[in-house]
Amino acid sequence: MDKSEYSITSKHIYSGKIVKLRVDEVVLSNGYITQREVVEHAPAVAILAVDDEGNVLFVRQFRYATGKELLEIPAGIMEKGESPEETARRELKEEVGYDAGYLKHIASFYSSPGFSDEIIHLFYATGIFPSKLDSDEDEIIEGIRLNPEECKRLIEEKKIEDAKTLTALLWYLNQIKSILPSKN
Amino acid sequence: MDKSEYSITSKHIYSGKIVKLRVDEVVLSNGYITQREVVEHAPAVAILAVDDEGNVLFVRQFRYATGKELLEIPAGIMEKGESPEETARRELKEEVGYDAGYLKHIASFYSSPGFSDEIIHLFYATGIFPSKLDSDEDEIIEGIRLNPEECKRLIEEKKIEDAKTLTALLWYLNQIKSILPSKN
Repeated sequence: MDKSEYSITSKHIYSGKIVKLRVDEVVLSNGYITQREVVEHAPAVAILAVDDEGNVLFVRQFRYATGKELLEIPAGIMEKGESPEETARRELKEEVGYDAGYLKHIASFYSSPGFSDEIIHLFYATGIFPSKLDSDEDEIIEGIRLNPEECKRLIEEKKIEDAKTLTALLWYLNQIKSILPSKN
Repeated sequence: MDKSEYSITSKHIYSGKIVKLRVDEVVLSNGYITQREVVEHAPAVAILAVDDEGNVLFVRQFRYATGKELLEIPAGIMEKGESPEETARRELKEEVGYDAGYLKHIASFYSSPGFSDEIIHLFYATGIFPSKLDSDEDEIIEGIRLNPEECKRLIEEKKIEDAKTLTALLWYLNQIKSILPSKN
């Protein structure tokens, strides 16, 4: 069953620093016509960086759209000409001051497929070592390091409020369980 | 360290069916002034519905913003006056035709905190039983049911491309591991 939708008209609404907005009139596979609002956003990269003791590196930053500080894994938008791996290395350096010995792609997912094309490429960084911290002037970021038990507790206490971070931590806890012997 | 940002001016750009867009001029805690683009979106609810055999219920639908079909768990926007639990029950009925015997709140997370206030409340639905399917006319949805092994394989093959669905499945696989005896 082909469920594709095709645009009839497309209206440009806004083009900014981070997002673009357009509103398309589309025809559905059942012939019904509706409107789709699309927020265009560059692809992004997030990094689950784990040190040699198994601790996860986090950043805590104020997120204006949500009105509060969130605990997140390092992440950022892909710059023109960059590969996802290059963005991962750059953001890890800029946000927490580390280089990665090894980078593994875990997953790529749309953050809000109902209205946005933003895709996040998630990487697992290991063999990390200190580098020079080189932050953007409009990013005020605080670095934090937590062990797997602390990550698990934060999830159970519902204190991880960022989707990509929750995804990364749940993936990591699954990995640890299959490597470490069970407590049962 | 207070990292709060305060708006100086706020400019309304667009108000549509699903999203609103505004651009604020804000002052950061270091005195630097910058612009923040904010996509306003109503809170949403997603449901990890699991039948008595442990299978997960999915929907496959075309997501215009991404240009392709995605495999997702049932989800939808909260309507005025609804509690998250009420939205969960309504969407489960509308999208897959089921009622839930039991609903448990797992997590609430921002899908894209860098530019949007959209929050998703994730519920775990069990004791599910068939109800009347009552779809919206602009939603063309196909129901699918997969067991935990199939879910695990889809994640490993990087075929789950929706953030909330990946989060829900990784949470579920973690839960199963702590309940079922380890194979080791």
